[in-house]
Amino acid sequence: MDWSIISILVSLLAFVVAAYFYYWVLKLPTENDKLKKVGSLIRKGSFTFLKKEYSILAIFVFVIAMFILFLFPEPLLKTKTPINNVYMTGAYVLGSVLSGLAGYIGISIATIANVKTATIAKKSLEKSFICGFRGGAVMGMAVVGTSLMGAAILYILTENPDVVLAFSFGASSLALFAKAGGGIFTKTADIAADLTGKVELGIPEDDPRNPAVIADNVGDNVGDVAGMGADLFDSNIAAIAATIIISLPLGQINLLFCFCALGLLSSIIGVLCSKIKKNGTPSQALNRGTYLTCALFAIFTLVATYYSKFDIRIWGATIVGMLIGVIIGVTSDYFTGDNKKPVKKVAESCQNGPAFTILSGFSYGLLSSMPALIGIGLASLISYKLCAPIGPGYEMLGISMSAIGMLSIVGMIISNDAYGPIVDNARGIAEMGNLGEEVIKRADELDAAGNTTKAITKGFAIGAAGLTVIALLAAFAKIVSTTTGEKLTFDIMNPAVFFGALVGVAIPAVFSAILIFGVNKNSQKLVKEIHRQFNETEGLKEGKVEPDYSKCINIATVGAIKELIPAGVISIIATLIVGFIGGVQSIGGFLTGNILSGLLLAMLMSNAGGLWDNAKKYIEAGNFGGKGSEAHKAAVIGDTIGDPFKDTAGPSINTQITVVSLVSSLAASLFMLYSIF
Amino acid sequence: MDWSIISILVSLLAFVVAAYFYYWVLKLPTENDKLKKVGSLIRKGSFTFLKKEYSILAIFVFVIAMFILFLFPEPLLKTKTPINNVYMTGAYVLGSVLSGLAGYIGISIATIANVKTATIAKKSLEKSFICGFRGGAVMGMAVVGTSLMGAAILYILTENPDVVLAFSFGASSLALFAKAGGGIFTKTADIAADLTGKVELGIPEDDPRNPAVIADNVGDNVGDVAGMGADLFDSNIAAIAATIIISLPLGQINLLFCFCALGLLSSIIGVLCSKIKKNGTPSQALNRGTYLTCALFAIFTLVATYYSKFDIRIWGATIVGMLIGVIIGVTSDYFTGDNKKPVKKVAESCQNGPAFTILSGFSYGLLSSMPALIGIGLASLISYKLCAPIGPGYEMLGISMSAIGMLSIVGMIISNDAYGPIVDNARGIAEMGNLGEEVIKRADELDAAGNTTKAITKGFAIGAAGLTVIALLAAFAKIVSTTTGEKLTFDIMNPAVFFGALVGVAIPAVFSAILIFGVNKNSQKLVKEIHRQFNETEGLKEGKVEPDYSKCINIATVGAIKELIPAGVISIIATLIVGFIGGVQSIGGFLTGNILSGLLLAMLMSNAGGLWDNAKKYIEAGNFGGKGSEAHKAAVIGDTIGDPFKDTAGPSINTQITVVSLVSSLAASLFMLYSIF
Repeated sequence: MDWSIISILVSLLAFVVAAYFYYWVLKLPTENDKLKKVGSLIRKGSFTFLKKEYSILAIFVFVIAMFILFLFPEPLLKTKTPINNVYMTGAYVLGSVLSGLAGYIGISIATIANVKTATIAKKSLEKSFICGFRGGAVMGMAVVGTSLMGAAILYILTENPDVVLAFSFGASSLALFAKAGGGIFTKTADIAADLTGKVELGIPEDDPRNPAVIADNVGDNVGDVAGMGADLFDSNIAAIAATIIISLPLGQINLLFCFCALGLLSSIIGVLCSKIKKNGTPSQALNRGTYLTCALFAIFTLVATYYSKFDIRIWGATIVGMLIGVIIGVTSDYFTGDNKKPVKKVAESCQNGPAFTILSGFSYGLLSSMPALIGIGLASLISYKLCAPIGPGYEMLGISMSAIGMLSIVGMIISNDAYGPIVDNARGIAEMGNLGEEVIKRADELDAAGNTTKAITKGFAIGAAGLTVIALLAAFAKIVSTTTGEKLTFDIMNPAVFFGALVGVAIPAVFSAILIFGVNKNSQKLVKEIHRQFNETEGLKEGKVEPDYSKCINIATVGAIKELIPAGVISIIATLIVGFIGGVQSIGGFLTGNILSGLLLAMLMSNAGGLWDNAKKYIEAGNFGGKGSEAHKAAVIGDTIGDPFKDTAGPSINTQITVVSLVSSLAASLFMLYSIF
Repeated sequence: MDWSIISILVSLLAFVVAAYFYYWVLKLPTENDKLKKVGSLIRKGSFTFLKKEYSILAIFVFVIAMFILFLFPEPLLKTKTPINNVYMTGAYVLGSVLSGLAGYIGISIATIANVKTATIAKKSLEKSFICGFRGGAVMGMAVVGTSLMGAAILYILTENPDVVLAFSFGASSLALFAKAGGGIFTKTADIAADLTGKVELGIPEDDPRNPAVIADNVGDNVGDVAGMGADLFDSNIAAIAATIIISLPLGQINLLFCFCALGLLSSIIGVLCSKIKKNGTPSQALNRGTYLTCALFAIFTLVATYYSKFDIRIWGATIVGMLIGVIIGVTSDYFTGDNKKPVKKVAESCQNGPAFTILSGFSYGLLSSMPALIGIGLASLISYKLCAPIGPGYEMLGISMSAIGMLSIVGMIISNDAYGPIVDNARGIAEMGNLGEEVIKRADELDAAGNTTKAITKGFAIGAAGLTVIALLAAFAKIVSTTTGEKLTFDIMNPAVFFGALVGVAIPAVFSAILIFGVNKNSQKLVKEIHRQFNETEGLKEGKVEPDYSKCINIATVGAIKELIPAGVISIIATLIVGFIGGVQSIGGFLTGNILSGLLLAMLMSNAGGLWDNAKKYIEAGNFGGKGSEAHKAAVIGDTIGDPFKDTAGPSINTQITVVSLVSSLAASLFMLYSIF
């Protein structure tokens, strides 16, 4: 059986399911005019941002495409096979366009599903859940289908791993900017809306009098839907690309596509089965879907291994990756779940003021990095040792298949993740459309389930990125070894490696700092605009006049786009500088340093942020004095600090690491030719 | 010339200078009875803490000494040279005792000099400065003299690097606990005193009505004097021990002792020349001393290289280390100095509330890690490349000599560092003794100079620790290679190395979290006690009755000692677990991960903490609304968060990394025999 062909067929099936969900959601009723209007404002704002962002990124993609055309895999003027340069350029552009398309589709359905979810919440929780979830699943299916199909087609056409690498680089360079830009936008709007609305004026969240309220809802879409979609699109392709490079000389490409196709198939079934059972809750429905997908994947691949006579050890490595993904997810859930000890302890220390809120949350964040780091370490160690006996080269295949295993349920992960902002939006729309307490309560329940699942899926995403980058490091070593004919090792005692590692450690830190500064600066600008509107527009506070929503959207858009460029560019330039100083050895160290500090900071920021958010919610539920108490004020400060941690910097680090790895692999031949040391 | 003998002579000279300063300070007058009383309370409190801490640590030292006796360098029952086990045990105990002694001497002079400095500040700023500085220099001279003399004598007696390693381990295991315990104590007292005094009651800092005020001053001594002294004692010995192991097979021991002796000599001259010139400031005096020491060291070692025919390349590597130390110090100063952009920007964002204070300070902290990381990377790369042409083995000598170069001015660093808490104490004593506005203003000026210099010397200390640990890693590799007869490499692509690196990254994070939790918990306990005293003791608020100072000291002491054990033990146990899972390969990765994340977190926390502290002072100087404004309240929150960052967790990480490296080197033979993978 040729599994690359079957992969394309399964991808087509995913598109059919996505289309079915799309029309299913579209056909649901929207009766209320007010809802329609709010919904269309959010939709318009989201597309405005996307359009501006994409038009800037188009220039970036064009510049890089020209670089690739003239330089990769070999300088155009010197090469005997210029067609390879054309292929790579084409693949790069295709990767970027598909990544952009994934974001576009995601926003396109999310800004319909939000209104429908709010409308239908009047009738029942169950239906409303399915509407939100299927809205998310459209993107889940589309993203995984496109990434798998793209990789399979490119591989079948060219059988050239460089081309798949360029495809992956296209996807991830776009994802880097989409995630960073969306992340800055969403938190700019969120923080400014909260500070002026909830804190200063004491009006509820999502109150239509707040000029930033639409921007806040737009942010959920451009940050969490479009950005996250691009991010996971990128992770998935990067893992496939790395595995193609490693498995090609071993003749194991068929196994790779087999496991990917079965992963997607499992996700399709899992998505179709995610429904609330009688007396069940939304959380249960989401978790059941996730665990079902895992179980199906394990069984399907075991059967395929048996019939296709794949080595059972590779199956073992894949399942180890998947299981450790679950473990990382569960520990993330422990550190951020609102019925667990850390959240309660942080909420308790809010009573002693904001300093203690921050210190305790930060400490838990530091602690939370340990299980994930050890988990990724164990996954790579076990999968390596498991596959090493098969033969030389298989140990690295073990590691990369363990990343594929962790990403096997990526279709389900994206569906869950995109569900979050849809129901979050639905809650806002219900509030703005005066749908009443009952509906808001239901929307809250849907939203809370989204938050918990988010922690688990985020653990998966970070873990998978960690393993993928190890695989990419192996792919990088393979590329260099193939050229030089010698086995490449990165010895830590070699100062070029160590130098690279030290610089590599700094990059995620600097990258995060730039993003947080961006949010900081822009939200202060937005706060000023909101104050201006309240002061200058008569009747606004009383709700008689509508605020100028689009002005706020515009400020957040312009600010985000201005800030995302330096953050992204600095990572790429640093890679090139290190490579030209210390050569491939320094790059090996650089990637290692990058992964190590990236994982640490990503876990710290994501989990501390989630923890503060839930500690605030725990207090708002009536504990330690409830809303309006001193403890609540301290918790709000914690939550504000956590916002750019968990939604801007933390989740962007994944993409930053992947981009750096891909730039290294692509520029490997240049570093071999030109370097100082 | 036998420079190991000269080292001992120079060390004796340092003792003479220390003794001279000691009696010089002692002979200064103390006229005021009130001052004497406050001074003796602080002194008594400090010694109480030290006594309790040392009696707990004595048990720890005894247990480890027994381990060493029975197991190292070879199991006692199997070895043919049991005398080596006895030597190692003796050296270990000697290292611990001398480290404890360093702390004891430091406290003993600091708690005299503080009162004298306050008294003499009535007369003149210049004299008061010299008093504070010479108080600090007593410890500076004593610490460097003891460490160099100890290493030289042990080397001359045994010529066995294992023994010097055991000596170093004794020093650093004690330093780990002294730094962590002192750090928890000082911030427990500081935070609790500030929160109840300045924030709740609005009484000034160091007001005698505050029950925690004496504990706060005791904290400066046990944390910043004793803890820091033990820390740098440890760094210095570790660098010497690593260099002995590396230089022994190359026959370069004489060069090592030569450079160490000349470093100490330069520091002695630098210390003697640190005086305020006419119309000069305390800052200028401190900086001049530091730069003079650097210049002398460069010249002395150049001359020695010429006459003793050492290789000039080694001199180059040493000076590269020293220069990069200066650069790291200056960049730390940029990020924390109160006349620089970051402090002003953070102070400005305080106007928008505490969330922005924290976000901007944290972001600058992240950024600040970059110059140090790149600096250490460059120092190791350049010194390696510089010395590689001399012959095999010299590249690593280059790196370790570059650490020695960075630590050449350690005598000056400790003097500067111990000056800080002495003048800080003097300020408190002047306030409690009602010495008047003029004196407090002078003490403030002395204090401010201490803060700025602290940033520079902290940069040196962290940089030196980074390079030392690289040297220790090389020493570890050398030990393993000598036993197995094969050259040891740590290839990142080896999953055992990678697994170790991932776990290694988590350790400084977990270690920091435990320390911050400790401060968090204890200061909340202490706040409760202060509230109890204010509520139950009649006349306390009015200043008619004296509070129960010793109860507060007791709470801080017991809490600190309870928390320091798990933090220290977890690092040692994690090393052993990793070693027994993945063997020496995993340990190589583990040490690398530890250094990388340790440097990142240490710079982040130290600099963010210093930044918040100075942003608060900048506002208190009348900017952005000054004292009592909303901006000031936000800045106080930032400062409180920064307290355990910069004075507990951040500076303890150095020691944690060194201990882990030494444990690895000592247990290397065990890991080779028994490991799972």
